[in-house]
Amino acid sequence: MNKTTIVNIENNETIDDLQLKGLKLIQKVDSFKFGVDAVILADFANIKKKHKVIDLCTGTGIIPFLMYGKYDPAEIYGLEIQEDMVEMAKRSAILNSLEGKVTFIKEDLKNTVFLKTLNKFDVVTVNPPYKLNNAGIVNSSDKLAIARHEILCNLEDVISASKILLKDNGRLFMVHRPERLADIFTLMRKYKIEPKRVKMVYPSLGKAPNIVLVEGQRDGGAYLKWDPSLYVHDENGSYTKQIDEIYGRQ
Amino acid sequence: MNKTTIVNIENNETIDDLQLKGLKLIQKVDSFKFGVDAVILADFANIKKKHKVIDLCTGTGIIPFLMYGKYDPAEIYGLEIQEDMVEMAKRSAILNSLEGKVTFIKEDLKNTVFLKTLNKFDVVTVNPPYKLNNAGIVNSSDKLAIARHEILCNLEDVISASKILLKDNGRLFMVHRPERLADIFTLMRKYKIEPKRVKMVYPSLGKAPNIVLVEGQRDGGAYLKWDPSLYVHDENGSYTKQIDEIYGRQ
Repeated sequence: MNKTTIVNIENNETIDDLQLKGLKLIQKVDSFKFGVDAVILADFANIKKKHKVIDLCTGTGIIPFLMYGKYDPAEIYGLEIQEDMVEMAKRSAILNSLEGKVTFIKEDLKNTVFLKTLNKFDVVTVNPPYKLNNAGIVNSSDKLAIARHEILCNLEDVISASKILLKDNGRLFMVHRPERLADIFTLMRKYKIEPKRVKMVYPSLGKAPNIVLVEGQRDGGAYLKWDPSLYVHDENGSYTKQIDEIYGRQ
Repeated sequence: MNKTTIVNIENNETIDDLQLKGLKLIQKVDSFKFGVDAVILADFANIKKKHKVIDLCTGTGIIPFLMYGKYDPAEIYGLEIQEDMVEMAKRSAILNSLEGKVTFIKEDLKNTVFLKTLNKFDVVTVNPPYKLNNAGIVNSSDKLAIARHEILCNLEDVISASKILLKDNGRLFMVHRPERLADIFTLMRKYKIEPKRVKMVYPSLGKAPNIVLVEGQRDGGAYLKWDPSLYVHDENGSYTKQIDEIYGRQ
């Protein structure tokens, strides 16, 4: 029995194939496209079928869809402040016939009163804006700028929201830039989310790391485990086997 | 004109050649021997000829001698709590004809009243005990245990002492274990020593990192730079070129 799904796609939008269980994602042609960050965060997150999961700063919803494809947890939510992004993510959910499974919420993560009305989550994931709002001149109405710079929320807002949303011993999985790791650790501890696991990501061997993955546990005990690192490109500029495996291309 | 140096060497001691400007080091046969940590810390430290430098938890004095050999800074001090280690380090200074250049002090770094009597330093280096005092059963009178476990001082004592010893904008260079990096960053910030540079060290490619080098700056501005990483062994178990270069074996 075939089901016909009618989803409106705008002229400035594309439908991209996630190469994962036939999942598709609507993205804007000229705006923020998901990259390796989202894919490696979904891989780094340790999610069980019984888990209730929320992705902050979800944008197009890429991380919720990847988590659905990889782990199929009980409930998946995505929170996003930009109305048109939420509307687009909802159309992706319809396109994938996941309306009842992956739910998008238009809300500001700084709205702690709202966050406290939600039931607690086992897992929070987040790929937040990386850059300090003072790092370079930005146009604060630019969607790319909002995704990349701390204009509408900063690292402390993200971690403080995670504390509210997580169950006791629930886990936060974050992808960020290594130059912010001292900020990440100190803010996590400020909000009683203990850093438990780190994985460094290098563009290639011999380069400095340019991405960091961090797992924190609400009220967790202090012990920080380091995973073997991830190298994105080999000496020829091709993707490494590690990346091919994460993308399911092995 | 030859100078004859007479230095007493005990039966349980050896004289090791540092393979650096003819420098020698007295060590105990059955106790803590310097390892790769000391060598890579001396390499990581960024020291100028005009600098006044102090090494905490100096033990045999390995790091002061390596820093003398590599950088020849204006003044070098080593602080150590264990009387017999200080006495041995002083004999190494005589053996190297460096009595006026490399000075060892027997003192507890928790003695803040004493630390405040010293003039300020441009650089503090430290290879502190790595392990929490609660990590495994230790014999607290054992010299190996004192070098490895936080028995006589802990990470907070080391960083708090560094704050007292450093000039404004002076630099702290530390070698430690990656699992303590959240502690290092949070304690550095607590004592106004801003983490400025990190270098991860891997036993070999594909393994998790097992050593971390951290540079902090007293009252420094917040920006954390990551160096390309260091790999100690190659796939055949031999030292990598990177390590050979640091050891001056290229």
